[in-house]
Amino acid sequence: MLRNLFSPSSIAVVGATAGAARIGGKVFSTLLAHKYAGRLYPVNPSHSEISGLKAYPSVEAIGQPVDLALIAIPAGRVPDAVRQCAKAGIPYVVIFSSGFAEEGEAGKRLQAELDAIRRETGIRISGPNAEGFFNAIDCVAATFSPAIGIDSGKDRQGKRIGVVSQSGGLGFALYNRGRREDLLFSHICSVGNQVDLEAADYLEAMLDDPQTGIILMYAESFKSPRRFISLANRAAASGKPIVMAKVGRSTAGQRAAASHTGAIAGPAVVCDTALAHAGVIQAHDQDQLLDIAAGLANYAPITGNRVAIISTSGGTAVWLTDTCEAMGFDLPEIDGERQRRIAEFIPAYGSTANPVDITAQGVNAYAQSLEVLADADYLDAFIVVSSFAHEARLRAEGPELAAIVKRLGKPVLFYSYTVPSEGSRALLRDLGIHCFTSMLGCVRALAGLRTYGQHLERIASSDASPATLALSGAGRKLLTAGSAVLCEYESKALLQRSGIACPEEHLATDVELALAAAHRLGYPVALKLQSPDLPHKSEAGAIALNVRDDDALRASFGRLLQNAREHAPEAQIRGALVQPMAARGVEMIAGIVNDDEFGPFVMVGLGGIYVEVLKDTVLAPAPVDKQTARDMLRSLKGWPLLAGVRGELPADVEAMADLLVDLSKLALSAEDCLQELDVNPIFVHEQGKGLTIVDALAIRRPQ
Amino acid sequence: MLRNLFSPSSIAVVGATAGAARIGGKVFSTLLAHKYAGRLYPVNPSHSEISGLKAYPSVEAIGQPVDLALIAIPAGRVPDAVRQCAKAGIPYVVIFSSGFAEEGEAGKRLQAELDAIRRETGIRISGPNAEGFFNAIDCVAATFSPAIGIDSGKDRQGKRIGVVSQSGGLGFALYNRGRREDLLFSHICSVGNQVDLEAADYLEAMLDDPQTGIILMYAESFKSPRRFISLANRAAASGKPIVMAKVGRSTAGQRAAASHTGAIAGPAVVCDTALAHAGVIQAHDQDQLLDIAAGLANYAPITGNRVAIISTSGGTAVWLTDTCEAMGFDLPEIDGERQRRIAEFIPAYGSTANPVDITAQGVNAYAQSLEVLADADYLDAFIVVSSFAHEARLRAEGPELAAIVKRLGKPVLFYSYTVPSEGSRALLRDLGIHCFTSMLGCVRALAGLRTYGQHLERIASSDASPATLALSGAGRKLLTAGSAVLCEYESKALLQRSGIACPEEHLATDVELALAAAHRLGYPVALKLQSPDLPHKSEAGAIALNVRDDDALRASFGRLLQNAREHAPEAQIRGALVQPMAARGVEMIAGIVNDDEFGPFVMVGLGGIYVEVLKDTVLAPAPVDKQTARDMLRSLKGWPLLAGVRGELPADVEAMADLLVDLSKLALSAEDCLQELDVNPIFVHEQGKGLTIVDALAIRRPQ
Repeated sequence: MLRNLFSPSSIAVVGATAGAARIGGKVFSTLLAHKYAGRLYPVNPSHSEISGLKAYPSVEAIGQPVDLALIAIPAGRVPDAVRQCAKAGIPYVVIFSSGFAEEGEAGKRLQAELDAIRRETGIRISGPNAEGFFNAIDCVAATFSPAIGIDSGKDRQGKRIGVVSQSGGLGFALYNRGRREDLLFSHICSVGNQVDLEAADYLEAMLDDPQTGIILMYAESFKSPRRFISLANRAAASGKPIVMAKVGRSTAGQRAAASHTGAIAGPAVVCDTALAHAGVIQAHDQDQLLDIAAGLANYAPITGNRVAIISTSGGTAVWLTDTCEAMGFDLPEIDGERQRRIAEFIPAYGSTANPVDITAQGVNAYAQSLEVLADADYLDAFIVVSSFAHEARLRAEGPELAAIVKRLGKPVLFYSYTVPSEGSRALLRDLGIHCFTSMLGCVRALAGLRTYGQHLERIASSDASPATLALSGAGRKLLTAGSAVLCEYESKALLQRSGIACPEEHLATDVELALAAAHRLGYPVALKLQSPDLPHKSEAGAIALNVRDDDALRASFGRLLQNAREHAPEAQIRGALVQPMAARGVEMIAGIVNDDEFGPFVMVGLGGIYVEVLKDTVLAPAPVDKQTARDMLRSLKGWPLLAGVRGELPADVEAMADLLVDLSKLALSAEDCLQELDVNPIFVHEQGKGLTIVDALAIRRPQ
Repeated sequence: MLRNLFSPSSIAVVGATAGAARIGGKVFSTLLAHKYAGRLYPVNPSHSEISGLKAYPSVEAIGQPVDLALIAIPAGRVPDAVRQCAKAGIPYVVIFSSGFAEEGEAGKRLQAELDAIRRETGIRISGPNAEGFFNAIDCVAATFSPAIGIDSGKDRQGKRIGVVSQSGGLGFALYNRGRREDLLFSHICSVGNQVDLEAADYLEAMLDDPQTGIILMYAESFKSPRRFISLANRAAASGKPIVMAKVGRSTAGQRAAASHTGAIAGPAVVCDTALAHAGVIQAHDQDQLLDIAAGLANYAPITGNRVAIISTSGGTAVWLTDTCEAMGFDLPEIDGERQRRIAEFIPAYGSTANPVDITAQGVNAYAQSLEVLADADYLDAFIVVSSFAHEARLRAEGPELAAIVKRLGKPVLFYSYTVPSEGSRALLRDLGIHCFTSMLGCVRALAGLRTYGQHLERIASSDASPATLALSGAGRKLLTAGSAVLCEYESKALLQRSGIACPEEHLATDVELALAAAHRLGYPVALKLQSPDLPHKSEAGAIALNVRDDDALRASFGRLLQNAREHAPEAQIRGALVQPMAARGVEMIAGIVNDDEFGPFVMVGLGGIYVEVLKDTVLAPAPVDKQTARDMLRSLKGWPLLAGVRGELPADVEAMADLLVDLSKLALSAEDCLQELDVNPIFVHEQGKGLTIVDALAIRRPQ
């Protein structure tokens, strides 16, 4: 896909000029500077020749098949130019011109016109308001970015990076920076306003491209979030990691939500969760993006956590140990036998334990240490620390070191604590060794390998398609008729009809019926007024707990009605729900939120004060399998409360995990009609004793 | 101080050789390569001349005054050489040789010998096992580090950085990296094994040195922590910021502690707290150290939080906004009037709100935007984002931009999202503009300016010397006689005698006395066995709560005794404490820990489950003034519980802050005899209603 776009045999440049004063001139001269190998047709009615090439008054005048037109003329004239391209049978155009949707109402109308043209004619449009693309393998420089003026490394071997960026400046800057670190690239694509081709299209093209092994993305928003997630899943399945900077977090406000779950699952949290579950590795600055890409380009992913450091500088080793441990890596102590073997070739003032300090005097000790440690089954990766400010050591030990690194089968990352000299850089390049020059960057790269490896492991072991329960007709009716906010008794009926057990309870429309219900359940009972207009019953004084006898029940019934009338005189009261008092347990909250962009998610958190003050909650996209549900619970800060703290018995974690799986089934099957659901509070009892759902609140999806 | 060390008129190199194969040869050739301007005496009995200079068989043979001897001979011969130096009247030696305390018992003995020599003779020793120093202003390269082979910038003007490093490799690497970013340095000192001169001595010398404006430190441990803190306070008072990497965090285990407070206040937490309160800015990697130094070298500190971004790349601006907000900065919207003025000179598709997107076409718009925003009183700092991959813009707009930046009076940080070209670097240097090349680095630098500015503000406004209460003689006796663990009633007596009120309570040695006490207090009461052997009373079943009448009290008394006998048959029981039941409130814990390195600290946290599961606690070194105490409380994650959550009334924060101030006074006055103190639980009542101390546990300091 997009083959003709990225590797065109012929290009017309509409708006080409000789100088570089205008964008059209810049694009034309950039193509020439990068020695575009196909046929090139400058189109400009004011010139008969530009930079030694015959110029044409229009694309129609070219009279030859053209694969791609690059358009850099004022916005107002762009629609006509695109129409002419379509008429001339040109399949792709890249529009550099600004002045479209990014620039007020007139611009929006112009962009709509482009959209209409592509729907009428089938022509595919990249942009407008784009910086174009650079195919770094075939050297097609269809851009005006000056940042690509650096050797493209097209003849070198290695995993190549494709870049898809919603900001042209940043996309090409990633190339500019990455090439300085000797990373290899396939294509850099600036997506512009995405009137037609969108980020997901370029991503798909990168997935199809055999030369692209890693995809870096910069995204401010998603045009079709679910398509993106589906492509991300395909990327993971085909072993092409996606590393993404998803920005605009600060501007993504909280959603207006009627439920706790909705309020907790703000757009940024939902997006982060969706990306993580699709195996997308997020990065938060350019350096991190490139460092993670460097890791993925040079090493196989890891699933473990255990690192050995081999260093000539004891201080750097200690510092790096801190950095590793701060990012969740362990440095296991080297076993005695291997320590003895290492001690044989390093000075007495070195260290053999881990970090291994071979000291500045240790000759050839990197390779020897790696030989000794290579098959230690308690190590997952290595970091070799050196100073490459001078190339003497690299010249002496480099080839042997490179050979063992290639053989080793585990990642060996290199970090120089000084700035590598140009000579060192050249040697490293020849040896095929990537060198990190930032401690943080090196460990971030290792963390990226781990994130990706653990994701691959998770998808390999996950229950691929948990059976989706079809929401019963009666359950669906609850969500499609009646009010936007379901009362507690209706919300619980929805749960019951989705196979989620709630305690026996009775809706009583008058006090006599309430007494009868209480007698059936046995005192003490809870009494809760039911009204779609009172979603927050506590605040309305519409709840009485521990009602102990008939007299108390009569009194409570009257008091609740009076409270409700004072709180909301217009509230429609459906009656009072009579419930047995629940046995206590660990208080939790669970729920569903149906995100407009990414679909249904399940949320869980410690309840009460934990959710109110500490926001200790975790989200996962539906479907959630049992293992994921367990992992969600374990990732809560309050997990010790479930696991049993200070000698208390552990809570029924399995029952809680089952509830999350069931909620995720409900979330999927009610995706069209359920907006939000709180199950709150839930009392999770001791292990083996299940849980009690005390209250629930469902919100219909606006149709 | 150390003037003769860093700027010697004459140097003897003991162990000098001609080649660079040995350390002595490397040191000698490094001095020559950096054109040492003083008299240089190679000392080596095997040579009569080295590199064209007359060589001497011994330092005595020189026959001229020598300011400094550099020693690079095998460890075993070092003590004799140092003795000869002392005899020859040489005031300072730097010992490069390894093989001392870092290398087993024999090495430790050798080091002890050095210590003895310096005590006998008064000679000052730097090292051993050091990489020496580099005086970058006078070009005294008394080191074998190859990392200093880079222009020292000695003739340039600007704030200079002094480096004091416990790792020579890292210290000189900071210079190597920093010079690449055009930072200016004064001295780089490798402290080695610190047998005599220690990090604090070099720090003091930097504070005395008028050419040093900023000090970077790398520390694995502190030889004299309190002296360091006192120097750090002096540094803050004299406006010389210290930026430090304190490593070895992962190896600093938890302390063995009898109290909650002791367990919470592990060595790493105590050290972080001590450094922060002394105004030391911590950094966690080399880049962060240098970025913060670059900020401090080029800009005045800020106390505010409000940033405007001016960018040619909309994407970079969005991303940078996220980064700023993630690090606690605000981007206030530009006011309407200023937006209108900016709109006049930027293209229509730009943005005026903040970030200000002047677009790639905005000509001279950086300087113009800064002019417009300069006096906006709602902005504290600016970040200018550009691409310096090419120098065209800088050539055109640079001088005007540099002029306004100099005039502006608020920090204007520059960030290039591409790699700056060599031409751009030269232009920036000439313009006196520092350019950050990492987004994270730029915002970290800004955060460093804020940390430092806020510290300066805090020390200016802090209650410099809160009156220290003298612990009464009776209080002191509690801590100097008797058992290592004080019972609750003794711990509370200690509080009472330090002016901290506890509720009335009575120690009853038999059940009749307990009944009398209960009658005096009125039921319900709490009953708690008192034994120095049962510090954890709940676990021993030694507490009865809500005892309602005489019968219950009799029964409880017997039951507690029996529980204690079963739990710890040997426990010495002092009686039962009879207390009124405390009115509930927000449950908190406070305490004191007396750190061996940094002295007494006060701790506070939310109690109960918060401290158990969430470790939501905060520490400060004593003395704590009222404002610091309030800040401590506000920094707790559970602060909303104190401030009043979901309509509940706020708690008596002022009473709690007073308690912390009082505890800090006790901590200081009992520093010699109090090791740890828990005040736990504390019930903090509604605003104006004070607090109740329910239990306390003090641990004596081993004498």
